[in-house]
Order: sequence, then C-alpha cells, then structure tokens
Amino acid sequence: MHSIVLLSLLVLSYSASALQDDFCVADLTGADTPSGYVCKKVDDVTVDDFVFSGLGVPGNTTNIIKAAVTPAFVGQLPGTNGLGISAARLDLAPGGVVPLHTHPGGSELLIVIQGSICAGFISSSANAVYTKTLKKGDTMLFPQGLLHFQINAGGSNAVAFVSFSSPNPGLQITAFALFANSLPSALVEKVTFLDDYEVKKLKGVLGGTN
Amino acid sequence: MHSIVLLSLLVLSYSASALQDDFCVADLTGADTPSGYVCKKVDDVTVDDFVFSGLGVPGNTTNIIKAAVTPAFVGQLPGTNGLGISAARLDLAPGGVVPLHTHPGGSELLIVIQGSICAGFISSSANAVYTKTLKKGDTMLFPQGLLHFQINAGGSNAVAFVSFSSPNPGLQITAFALFANSLPSALVEKVTFLDDYEVKKLKGVLGGTN
Amino acid sequence: MHSIVLLSLLVLSYSASALQDDFCVADLTGADTPSGYVCKKVDDVTVDDFVFSGLGVPGNTTNIIKAAVTPAFVGQLPGTNGLGISAARLDLAPGGVVPLHTHPGGSELLIVIQGSICAGFISSSANAVYTKTLKKGDTMLFPQGLLHFQINAGGSNAVAFVSFSSPNPGLQITAFALFANSLPSALVEKVTFLDDYEVKKLKGVLGGTN
Amino acid sequence: MHSIVLLSLLVLSYSASALQDDFCVADLTGADTPSGYVCKKVDDVTVDDFVFSGLGVPGNTTNIIKAAVTPAFVGQLPGTNGLGISAARLDLAPGGVVPLHTHPGGSELLIVIQGSICAGFISSSANAVYTKTLKKGDTMLFPQGLLHFQINAGGSNAVAFVSFSSPNPGLQITAFALFANSLPSALVEKVTFLDDYEVKKLKGVLGGTN
Amino acid sequence: MHSIVLLSLLVLSYSASALQDDFCVADLTGADTPSGYVCKKVDDVTVDDFVFSGLGVPGNTTNIIKAAVTPAFVGQLPGTNGLGISAARLDLAPGGVVPLHTHPGGSELLIVIQGSICAGFISSSANAVYTKTLKKGDTMLFPQGLLHFQINAGGSNAVAFVSFSSPNPGLQITAFALFANSLPSALVEKVTFLDDYEVKKLKGVLGGTN
Amino acid sequence: MHSIVLLSLLVLSYSASALQDDFCVADLTGADTPSGYVCKKVDDVTVDDFVFSGLGVPGNTTNIIKAAVTPAFVGQLPGTNGLGISAARLDLAPGGVVPLHTHPGGSELLIVIQGSICAGFISSSANAVYTKTLKKGDTMLFPQGLLHFQINAGGSNAVAFVSFSSPNPGLQITAFALFANSLPSALVEKVTFLDDYEVKKLKGVLGGTN
Repeated sequence: MHSIVLLSLLVLSYSASALQDDFCVADLTGADTPSGYVCKKVDDVTVDDFVFSGLGVPGNTTNIIKAAVTPAFVGQLPGTNGLGISAARLDLAPGGVVPLHTHPGGSELLIVIQGSICAGFISSSANAVYTKTLKKGDTMLFPQGLLHFQINAGGSNAVAFVSFSSPNPGLQITAFALFANSLPSALVEKVTFLDDYEVKKLKGVLGGTN
Repeated sequence: MHSIVLLSLLVLSYSASALQDDFCVADLTGADTPSGYVCKKVDDVTVDDFVFSGLGVPGNTTNIIKAAVTPAFVGQLPGTNGLGISAARLDLAPGGVVPLHTHPGGSELLIVIQGSICAGFISSSANAVYTKTLKKGDTMLFPQGLLHFQINAGGSNAVAFVSFSSPNPGLQITAFALFANSLPSALVEKVTFLDDYEVKKLKGVLGGTN
Repeated sequence: MHSIVLLSLLVLSYSASALQDDFCVADLTGADTPSGYVCKKVDDVTVDDFVFSGLGVPGNTTNIIKAAVTPAFVGQLPGTNGLGISAARLDLAPGGVVPLHTHPGGSELLIVIQGSICAGFISSSANAVYTKTLKKGDTMLFPQGLLHFQINAGGSNAVAFVSFSSPNPGLQITAFALFANSLPSALVEKVTFLDDYEVKKLKGVLGGTN
Repeated sequence: MHSIVLLSLLVLSYSASALQDDFCVADLTGADTPSGYVCKKVDDVTVDDFVFSGLGVPGNTTNIIKAAVTPAFVGQLPGTNGLGISAARLDLAPGGVVPLHTHPGGSELLIVIQGSICAGFISSSANAVYTKTLKKGDTMLFPQGLLHFQINAGGSNAVAFVSFSSPNPGLQITAFALFANSLPSALVEKVTFLDDYEVKKLKGVLGGTN
Repeated sequence: MHSIVLLSLLVLSYSASALQDDFCVADLTGADTPSGYVCKKVDDVTVDDFVFSGLGVPGNTTNIIKAAVTPAFVGQLPGTNGLGISAARLDLAPGGVVPLHTHPGGSELLIVIQGSICAGFISSSANAVYTKTLKKGDTMLFPQGLLHFQINAGGSNAVAFVSFSSPNPGLQITAFALFANSLPSALVEKVTFLDDYEVKKLKGVLGGTN
Repeated sequence: MHSIVLLSLLVLSYSASALQDDFCVADLTGADTPSGYVCKKVDDVTVDDFVFSGLGVPGNTTNIIKAAVTPAFVGQLPGTNGLGISAARLDLAPGGVVPLHTHPGGSELLIVIQGSICAGFISSSANAVYTKTLKKGDTMLFPQGLLHFQINAGGSNAVAFVSFSSPNPGLQITAFALFANSLPSALVEKVTFLDDYEVKKLKGVLGGTN
C-alpha cells in the first residue's frame, strides 16, 4: 500500500513533465506549418481522432469519369497529422477511370478489394511505363510525384484502398490542371503541343475558361 | 521529321545524365544502409518490383493466437525501399488476437475488410488507453512505437489491411520479447513485476529458456 | 573610421533580414506542432534557455522500483526544441530497477557515472537479447522503440546520464501501460497471455482499475 | 616547439577517428541508395568534385522546343550527393518553351540571367494558376511535384539558372511521358480525355509507338 | 453539359477536403517553428509570394569588405518556407571579399555570373583546403557548416548567384562573431590563440566592446 | 504442446521476412553513404557493437590547450550508425580550453561531471553571445553549426560528457582550420582581417605552412 503511494508520486511527477510526444492530433481550426497542423491539446484528444468510418461508404461514381476518390487525409482523420501516413478509398464503376495524376507529396500503395484494376505509372528518367492488371488482393506501388492512373479492368464495380506516405499527399489530375482553370488556351497549347481545337473542347468539357 | 531527330537528341542527351531518382528498388542481395537497401539497377527493374500478390491469400490462423500477419514489407515488395510505406494483411479467426506489440519504425493505419475488430493503443505520456470496436470499412491509426493490439470482436473471421509509414516498420510482440528467448526468468521478473510462476509458465508456452 | 560606419550599415541591413534560424527555443505556453513547439522570440531568449541544473540533483529513489528518472526534455530545457537531442539523469538505489520500457520517439545513449548497471535491450526481428553489465565510464546504446531495462548491478547507489536523439523521446513503461490504467483485466489477459490472478494483482500494486 | 609536437599528437589522434562527415562525394561507379550514392574515399576527393563548368556553356536550342536544359545534378557534380541541392542552366531561344513538367524529387528556384521568361505553376488543391513574366534578375519558386512551365517572353535569347532542393530532382515532361513511349493510344486517351487523332499525331511527333 | 455538372460536384467535394499541401507560404507575422513559419491562408497566397526582384539589383559594395550579400531567404521570399531552398546575390567590387564564414543551416551552391572569384572551403576532419578560381559560368559547392570564403579574383566587379538547401541557412562571419560583440578580449584570446593587441585592434575596427 | 509448434511456425515464417530494421550497426570496412555506413549483418552483431568503455578513461591533457576530447562517434561506437546520436568525453586540466569550434553535423548537449566549466556560443543572426559558468551537474546546449567554446573555470581538473544529435557531428576548430594547413598567409589575412605577423606566428605554433 505504501509502495503504491510512492509509485504514484513518481509517476505523477514524471507525467507533469511529459509532453504530447506520442502523437500530435491536428487542430484543424489552428495554424498549419510545413510539418503539419498545430496539435490539439492532449486532454481534448479522444479515440475518435484516430478513427474514420468514411472509407466504408462507396463513393458516388455517377460522373464523367465513373470513379470516386474518398480521402482519409488529415482533414478527415486528424490523427494522421505528423505521422507520415493517410488513406483513401477508390471506387471505379464499369468503364471507370482515375485519370492521369500525381501526388506531389507522397508515395501511394494500392490494394484491390473488389474487381480488377489496370494501373500504371511512368518514370521520369526515361518515360518508362510500368503497368499491371491487378486482381483482388493485389498490391501495387506508385512512387512519389510520378504520373499514374487506374482503370477498371473488368465488367463490374472495382474497389481499392490506397494509403500514402504523407498525411496530405495532394492530388494533381493532369487534365484538370490543364483544362479546368483559367490558363489561356494559347499557353496550354504551347506547353503541351496540343491543338487549339482539342484544348478548347476539353476546357468546355471540364469547365475551364480562356 | 527533322524536329523529331533533334528532339530525340535532346531527350537522349538528357537521359544520359538522368539517374534513378524516381525510385530505388531494393537489391535484397546487396547491402542495407540506414536509409534502406542499395538500389537495383534501373534496367533490371520491372513492374513486378512494385506489385505483390501475397496479401490476397488468407494467412494460416491455426495457431495459439488464432491470427496471422502477412507482411508486404521491403523483403516482399522491394519497390517500397526508400518510399516510406509498406503494408500487411491481418487475419483473425474467431477468438483471434494480435497480442500487445509495437512497431518501432513506423505508424500503422488499419482498414477492416471483413468482420469486426476491437483495437486499441496506449499512450506513453499518461498510460492513457484509446480503444474502439471497428466494423467493416472503419479505419484506425496506431502512432509509431506505442503499444497496441487487435482482437476479433465478432464470431466470424475478420480481415484487415494495414499500411505503415516505413518500408520495414518492425514488429515487437511484448509477450514474445519477454518469454520467447533466453532472458533469465529472474531478470524478466525484476523488470516486469511478474511472479516467477507466471514467467516460467509463459516461457514454457512460448518456447523461452532460462 | 568611415569604413566602420559603412560596415555597420551592411551588418545592420543584413541582420534586419536574418531570422531565428540558429535555434528555436520552445515557447512552452504556445502551440505544439509535429516538429516541436513554436519558437520564443529571439529577443526574449537568454542563455538560461539552454542551461539546466536539475540533473545535478539526485532523484528520490524511495519508491517501489528504488529508482528515479529526472528528465531534461523540452519541458525542462526549452532550448532542445527542434535540435534533436535531450537528456535525463538516472538514479538507482541498491536493488533499483528501471522496468522494461521503450522510448517511442528516440534512441538512447547511457553513460554510467557511478556504480554498476546491468542493462539490455531486445530486438524486434528475432527477440534477440543484448545485455551487458556496465561499470563507471561505460556507454551503451538503446535503439529507438526497442524494449530495454536498467538494473543496479552493485551494492551501492548507481547514477547514469542518458541522452536521447529527440527533444521529447517519450517513456512507455510496459508494466505501467498494462496495469496502471483502466484497461479491462480480461483484455489485458488476452493480449499478454497472463493469468487473471497475476493481472489483477499487478493492477492492485500499480493502481490500475477494471 | 614542444607544444607543437604535443598538439600534433592530439590532432592526429583525433583525425584518426574522424570520418567523412563533412561531405559524401558520390562514387558514381558505386551503388546508389535511397539517400544517395556511396561516398568516394576522402583521400580521393579533390576540389573538382565540387566544381562544374558546364553551366557556362549555352545549351543547343536547335530543336523542336527551341530550348535546352543543362543539368548540374549529382551525375555531373558528384559533390552534391547528400547535400540536398543541385542546379541547371536553361536556354530559351526566341519562341522557346520548356513544356509542362514536374520535378518529382525537389523544389526549384529560378533566376533570370538574360532576357524575359513567362513562368507558371499549377497547384493541386484547386488547380489554381500562378504565373508571372520575369525580367532579368527576377527569382521565382516552383514547389516540389507541381506542374510548371517556362516560356521565352521576349524576342531574344533568354537564359536562367535554376537550383533544386535535391541532388537529383528528376524531370517528367508531361507530353513526353504521354506521347514518347509505348503506352497504347487507347489507354492514353482514356486517362487524358484527348482525342484519338490528337494522341496519334503527337506520338508521331514525339517518337511514341502503339 | 450534364457531365460537367457531375464532374464539378466531384471536384468540389474533393477540393473541400484538400489542404494546403502543395506549399506553405510563410506568414511572417505569425509564429515560427522548428520546421518554419506557420502558413499563410491559401486564399491569400498570390504569385508574388513566390517571386522576388531584389536579386536583380547590385548590392552596395562601398564598405570595408567591398562586398555585399543580398538575401532571398524566407524573410524576403516567403514562398521558400518549408521548401528547403533559398538564394542570394553576391557582389564583389575589385578587391572585395566575403570573409571566412559558415552557414550553420544549409549547403551552398554558387554560380559566377560576371567576373572571376577565388573561393574555397576547409573540411573539419583534417583541416583540408579546397580552393578554386572560378570564371563566369562556373559552379562551386560549399557543404553545410564548413568554413568558406569568396574573393574577387579579377580587376573588375564580380557577381554570383548562390542558392542554399534551406529557406534560412544563416550566416556566421567568423571575424564578426569574434570581434563585433561584447565577448571579453581575454576570452577571445584564450579560445583563438590571438594576441591581445590583435583582438583589441579588430574589436575597434569591427565595433566590438570589452 | 501442439500450439507451441504452431506458434513457432508462425514466428519463424515471420522472422524469415523480417529485416534489420531495429538498428544498422556500421560495417566500418564497408561503404559510407549520406545516411551512414552500410550495415553489418545482423548475425554478426553483438552487444559490444552498442557498448564503449573509452569514455571512462581520462584523456591526455598534456598539450598546448591542456584539454582532450575523446570521441564515441560511429568510428568508435558503430551501433550509433543511423541512430542520430553519439557522445564524447571532455577533459580540461587547470587552464585548459577547447578552442572556438563548430560541429557542422549536429547539436551538442554537455553535462559537467567534475569541476567547473565556462562555456558559450555565438549566434549567427546577430553575433549574440550566450555564456554561462557551469558547475557539476549542469547541462548546456550548443545548437548545430554555431561557434562555441569551453574553458576550465576552476583550479582543478574538469570533466564533462557531451552528446551529439548525429553519429558523426564533425569538429572544426577555427584556429586549426585557419593556421594548421597550407592556406596561404595572404589569403588567411584577407578573409579574417588579421595581421600578417599574427597569421604567420600562429601558423608557426599550429604547424601550418605557406
């Protein structure tokens, strides 16, 4: 009994000096920094800061690409802040495609949960192409910053879970970067070699101006 | 036609100076370093260095913990080398448990694919406990180095895919670290407060000596 | 004389653009981030932010483990913020022990100042045990995240100074993580293989509930 | 005289234990690792490992893009290995353009030395466009992994020096990644929304097949 | 038309969860952290946060060292925050010299734009000297933390652009550190082996006291 | 009994895939890389790779500076490789001094074990001086790359243990860098403002040429 009291004192005195080194849950209402968001106070942290149910819900694929990406980045799962990891769910209806894109801030690891997916990436050093048709249970890596894509390779819905080496890897879809903003058509043509007709058509489809 | 030739020259001259910056697939027969394995030559790299099918196969849960962990670390998926990411599959038969453990080298993100899993981790600053019963589609984080566990919370098989913020996060199961080696029983008792009877019994069960 | 004035102007104009790159003393009343605390204003920094006298005072070892750990982490020594280093003092009375524990956030380097200490760590890859009895002047390393312990190996007080590769390495004592909180006994038993009797006894000793 | 001898002994004994921490010049004939090439032996290092004259020579802009990029990456300047920095020279003849591209491995800082350059990058979070026409002496940043371009904005040759936050930042030119390899046209069309006619035309111009 | 609406919904829902991962422009009025300043809100960021014109203006070399360093660090170019890169302009009048100095926080890469510069650095492991006389277009590296210098090696003005592997590399000029503050002369003499006469003379020239 | 066999199979199959993630003991006969030496094979690693007795032995202070630094860097303590930590012992006879120096590769934390030490460092941003006279048990920090010194402040031997945030922090003693090599005197004078007489005298004392 006596020893318990003594131990408690020891533990308490130590705790008083202990800081939130174990994790740094994002205070999404606070400031962002190059290393991530400022930390929520430890006393306000609950297990729900580390849990997210959104990836269990199929994304809405009723759109032009017949695909949906549901993120579990730091904005949805604040416990990822500073931990160098996050996740997303990928739904591909038949004919669905995640268009050519990069994640500027992290590498990606994909696991096929349902259906079949044709995926690939292109290296920068020699424009080499690495593609594979993946079945349920297959895993594939997409190194940071390289152009890659995923296409439903079967006749039914495909589902994959992906994880990233960053709490906020970013997503830059090439077609949207080129055609879904106000970059002048003439400039787009100059930096892509595309025809004026093509650029203006896709700006129309994707909502770009100029 | 002329321009193609000129461009090719440009591209070739550039490629000649380009190095394997995009990725560094592990040469598992080569040396390891603090940052990972030496890189396989780019010319020898194929898409299969970035693809792994092993996570599609259920692990064998006919064992004392009714559980199996199938890794896709750098040893199985050499493309993860240097990318700060890896994965594993977790199978839990009814009653199955992944005993208390840590990953010294990375944080973990778990997604339940089938069944229900009770999971939790313990913080170091105050021995605070964060537990949750997860259903299919739920995601949970386990920060680097903290003790955590996963238990089948339902009556049927449970499956989860986990990813890590390291190509080789390590796995230190507390009970195995204590009882499955040659650490003298007296020493184990001294550093854990456990009884001699308990320590010797578990050394017997888990294959330890001394 | 003229040149002095000109130089002063140069130096001043440069200083005006210089920022607190040399160090980032923690403002412990400010926000924490994944990379550490926000910085105190340089004008408020004094040498005392980089100096700590607490490690010169023996810790109180009148407790259940006959040991004391006195930290000089960022909370005590705010100059460590962002520098990747901190320290602590370890006092072990005769029979004293620092129970099995990990530092989730950093590696440890120990130097024996007085007495003799038996120390060891356990690797994760094969549960291999690395132990050594250290005498005054001996140094030993404990890699990040691995279970380790220190025991007074002599009949008199032992003292060691330890340093860490992090301003806030954390300290997770396995027995406290298991038995000094509200984790249900049945769950502890399931994830450790320990008997109900043992778990409940240690919860009693260490102040746990449930 | 006596003191010199004693000091020399001290210095020598220290040097004997000192390692090549100051730098790690790449042994380009040795292995590459995720952190860079293995180091050349210090005794073989000369100042020429840290010096490169190639950026003083104008690149050949007689090509389809009327532009040339001359790198001083680790392959040309082995002293950059492990230092987190490298450089390149950019020559743009009148009408010259560096087509839309990314550097997967580093951020870029450009300084205009001669002429005028219109440059821009596109953010991933909202496809926002950041463009500026730069004159001699202007500096502009291009964050890691984001699509960007540079166009000669004047009627005469333009020259810029660029530096990178990596010894080997990579260069992925979008048009070359899409049209200068063996990616099947149908697949390119699917992941870019481009017309079959356009894809096949550019494959012809840029040397792609399929 | 319908597809545009659907796509817009997709993009918007995604954007809503996207964070400022692409860059973190410094809010120079906000807090600093070990990883850099807190980020400006993305909506307030403009291209001018990534552009700086100050390096186009020759520095004033009418001073004791006949030299000027014009920085484009995070204080001048807030877009560098978190990107691991920055720049400066170096002007050297005939006879000009950048005295022996270090950058504690980053490596340096220099490109000669005009004139001729004799530059060198000293390694720590063996006090080895690496010097070179550089002409226009030559590039030279100075590894992080090592003492180095630059001297005008010709009879006319010399100009160089330098870049750093840090947004705020620091600049510690040895002579200023020793003689331009209040360090007592006796202490300076003890730690440098310099004569009292020399120390007091340079304190006079450089504005030091005591 | 049966369960033991099954468990063993599980553990063995897992171990087979486990790599040396826990640590990377330096193979000092192997290659060095920017992240450290290649790793010794795990089977060849023993506890002695993590233990060093050299810091228990007083250094020889019979030299010009009446001081000795005994390192426990990666060369002496190969277990530090990749762990971001190392140590050294500092002996100061009465009148002893560690002259002005920097560690280009790491921050330093000093603990006084015996005697009294006057220590200080100089910031780069404003040449500000931070000094303190430390007694037994006092701890002081010296941020990476900044000029600092230690002087015996009492009449008896002083001893300190120091640790570093790097396995190989380097040591650049300013006076040795200036006067103990072949840098021409005229050049030294130009970059330091020192008199020709002083430079040549110290070159004589410290063994420099030219």
